[in-house]
Amino acid sequence: MSEFRQDPITKNWVIIAPERAKRPGAFKRKKKRDERKLKCTCPFCEGNEKMTPPEIMAFRKKGAKPNEPGWTVRVFENKFPALIKNKSLDLRSSNIYLNMKTLGAHEIVALHKHKECMARESVSVIKESIEACKKRCSQLSREVLIKYIHVIQNQGARAGASISHPHFQIFALPLIPQMILREIDGTEEYYKIHKSCVYCDIIKEAKDNSRVILENEYFIAFTPYASRSQYEVWILSKRHEPRFEKVNNLEIKPLADIWKKVLLKLDKGLENPAYNSYIHTCPVNSDLSSETLNFYHWHIEILPKLSIWGGLELGTEVVINIQSPEEAAKFLRNVKVKSR
Amino acid sequence: MSEFRQDPITKNWVIIAPERAKRPGAFKRKKKRDERKLKCTCPFCEGNEKMTPPEIMAFRKKGAKPNEPGWTVRVFENKFPALIKNKSLDLRSSNIYLNMKTLGAHEIVALHKHKECMARESVSVIKESIEACKKRCSQLSREVLIKYIHVIQNQGARAGASISHPHFQIFALPLIPQMILREIDGTEEYYKIHKSCVYCDIIKEAKDNSRVILENEYFIAFTPYASRSQYEVWILSKRHEPRFEKVNNLEIKPLADIWKKVLLKLDKGLENPAYNSYIHTCPVNSDLSSETLNFYHWHIEILPKLSIWGGLELGTEVVINIQSPEEAAKFLRNVKVKSR
Repeated sequence: MSEFRQDPITKNWVIIAPERAKRPGAFKRKKKRDERKLKCTCPFCEGNEKMTPPEIMAFRKKGAKPNEPGWTVRVFENKFPALIKNKSLDLRSSNIYLNMKTLGAHEIVALHKHKECMARESVSVIKESIEACKKRCSQLSREVLIKYIHVIQNQGARAGASISHPHFQIFALPLIPQMILREIDGTEEYYKIHKSCVYCDIIKEAKDNSRVILENEYFIAFTPYASRSQYEVWILSKRHEPRFEKVNNLEIKPLADIWKKVLLKLDKGLENPAYNSYIHTCPVNSDLSSETLNFYHWHIEILPKLSIWGGLELGTEVVINIQSPEEAAKFLRNVKVKSR
Repeated sequence: MSEFRQDPITKNWVIIAPERAKRPGAFKRKKKRDERKLKCTCPFCEGNEKMTPPEIMAFRKKGAKPNEPGWTVRVFENKFPALIKNKSLDLRSSNIYLNMKTLGAHEIVALHKHKECMARESVSVIKESIEACKKRCSQLSREVLIKYIHVIQNQGARAGASISHPHFQIFALPLIPQMILREIDGTEEYYKIHKSCVYCDIIKEAKDNSRVILENEYFIAFTPYASRSQYEVWILSKRHEPRFEKVNNLEIKPLADIWKKVLLKLDKGLENPAYNSYIHTCPVNSDLSSETLNFYHWHIEILPKLSIWGGLELGTEVVINIQSPEEAAKFLRNVKVKSR
């Protein structure tokens, strides 16, 4: 049976989920997958709605019915969820260790077309998928035992994507991840010294130091100063806002636009690389004060998978990046793309 | 030029090292390497001593000369070092960010034979390689600007090993990695509550809960309670000792023996898997009190690379493991191996 277990030293949580071993591509040893076979029977494709759990929400054409073709973005529970609905967490302490039920939610936001990458979807479908993520984050945050909602998009087998059809995954967790707690501490500490938001200051600094890739009225995309991978890109809202789900109606289209353009530049410049990306945002239903949370600034981090982290990275979190972010920004600025 | 840069939010350090792009296997996009070609001209093989920087130390047969054949373990600087000798750190603060020189050392400890994995080396050569690591850790710790020495062994291209010849890498760092600081905090906090070492208690608990794989008089190998990967294995000294470099003469042979047996079990049971492994030990020359450091307990962590960490793991450090560590220990206990 699935459960959360906490490492008593680092306090990191692990999800022990033996039933996830049944999902496509999760073999004892990773074997090369037959991509064509997956494509023909892709459970995320229009027409294959029966292959997934029933939909939670969708954007669809007029007259189209739920769980039938005619949608452009479709949200449903992961067929092999790492987190599931539970009435209680059942937190147990056994001697040294803590464990608890895998309470939460694990959902898929499928985009319309089976393309090689999300970059090749239309701006309008990407916009709808962001709206779907925003809506599900808001809805899931109403469940009081949920403490953090993590939205990710993996692309390519090398980045761990078991299904190539472009999609987001939403993980509603009953805990605040250590990494988020550290970022919140970092923003609070910075605020106390500088009386400003570190992310807002990072935006100014990136402009001064030629790490900007592109920007529009509401968002900016740049390579971060301490990039952990070649061509790492962050997308930040220019408006200081702690929570992703508060992205407003004026901002969603510009967000879809800049996100697509960044992905297109990576796709064209690096020949369709695998990448991992995620949204970092504020915890929900937490005991942290609203003052503390207000220092935070939601953002997107995109990490192309161009190298493999070894024993240095895994054992220390000190990462070697063989390219300066200034060079990466220059390269990506010069990749010409057309977006619509 | 190479430099350390600190993320101002998480406080993690990154090594920006453009010259590492020249090392074998570091292409813009990872292409399948020609393993045979690497083998013929392996710079770590006996007879190819001219292909590496001059040796720092070696175990060799009587009469054999430095930098010539006749050795069983050979230590030399990495040809593409991520860290180099420098007289000063030159720590600079520019607006939001900190950076400093890549001061330190980056060395290779090559084992005698070009085998597919370290598991297939003899116990005596593994013992010598541990002695070499211990000696270099002691020597490097005499340099006052060095704060942490990290010993790793990557095996297999999937785990990021660019050269398949079995070897250790030693990174002497001018900083204490965040991950080590967190482990030290964790051991101190546990001690203050329980008046005992958390790792010593983990040994007892692993025995009670059938996660032990094997043990001898001085060491024990088991799968940790909150395993982050399938078949993750920790090797702990039964004697409470904060520092790896204090492993004593009675212990080195039993350590080589258990380490080899664990690797043989992984090699046989999982068909020569890629893995990352590293030693976690105490910082050197640090401002931390000796009382705080005494709570720590050095150990080895081995992480087979059987799955890929995606946006959940990279963005939160919450890891999904599709196998319970109890199951993994049972499987590895039952893999029969012969060691000598």
